[in-house]
Amino acid sequence: MKREFLVQNPRPDGYHLMMELYGCDSEKINSRRYLHNLIKGAVKKAGLTNLGSRFHQFQPHGVTGFTLLAQSHISFHTWPEFGYLVLDIFTCGDQDQADRLADHIVEKLQPARVSTNVVRKGFKYPRTL
Amino acid sequence: MKREFLVQNPRPDGYHLMMELYGCDSEKINSRRYLHNLIKGAVKKAGLTNLGSRFHQFQPHGVTGFTLLAQSHISFHTWPEFGYLVLDIFTCGDQDQADRLADHIVEKLQPARVSTNVVRKGFKYPRTL
Repeated sequence: MKREFLVQNPRPDGYHLMMELYGCDSEKINSRRYLHNLIKGAVKKAGLTNLGSRFHQFQPHGVTGFTLLAQSHISFHTWPEFGYLVLDIFTCGDQDQADRLADHIVEKLQPARVSTNVVRKGFKYPRTL
Repeated sequence: MKREFLVQNPRPDGYHLMMELYGCDSEKINSRRYLHNLIKGAVKKAGLTNLGSRFHQFQPHGVTGFTLLAQSHISFHTWPEFGYLVLDIFTCGDQDQADRLADHIVEKLQPARVSTNVVRKGFKYPRTL
C-alpha cells in the first residue's frame, strides 16, 4: 500500500493514553536499540501502520523517540537513572489497538508501577471541506 | 553542537500541553509544507533544539507530524474537513519555551477556539544509575 493513498480516520475521535512507567530496568530503557525493537514489535503486533520513527540516544543516559502511525502516534522519553519512562499513545483509530500497544510495552518492560491517564479528544463541528 | 553530546534535562519533571484548536483555516491545516514551516519556525523562535521531524500528508485531506526536541516533543494531527487540529507539546525543560511554542502556533493559525489542558509529570524516585 502506498503511503499517499492512506486515508485518515474520518472522525477526529481521539483516544490518548498518557502513561508513566516506574521502576523499569535501567539498562533496557537506556538502550535505543532495545526500545526501537520494542516499539516496532508492539506496532506490528497491534496491526498498526508505521509511517516512520525517530529515536535519539542521550549522553550520559536517556532515550527519546516517536513513531508516527497512520492511526496517530507513540512517543516516549526515558530517564534510566530514575528507572522512569513517559509514554504517550494517541490514536484516532481503534482503541483496542492502542490498548494492545500499551499492554505489549508494559509486558516487556515489567515496570514496578504504571500510572495511566486516558484523555478523550474530538468534536462534532460541521465539515468545512 | 553534536547530537551525541546533548544532555537530557537531569530531572524528569514534565510539562505537557494538550491542545485542541477549532475553526482553523482548512487550507493551512491541510498543507504539510505550511505546517512544517510553522513548527520549524516556532521551534526556532522558542530557542529549542530540533532533533528531527516527520510529517505526513493524508489523502484526501489531513496532515500528521512530529518533531523530536532535545527538551522533548511536539506532535499534531489535523482534520481540515473539520477545521480541527490536535496539538501536544511535552517538555522536560523550560516551561516558558513550551508556552512560547504554543503561543506562536496559535497566533499563526488563528483558530476560533482553543482548548488547553496542562498535565504535569515526573517524580522523585532515587537514582538507579
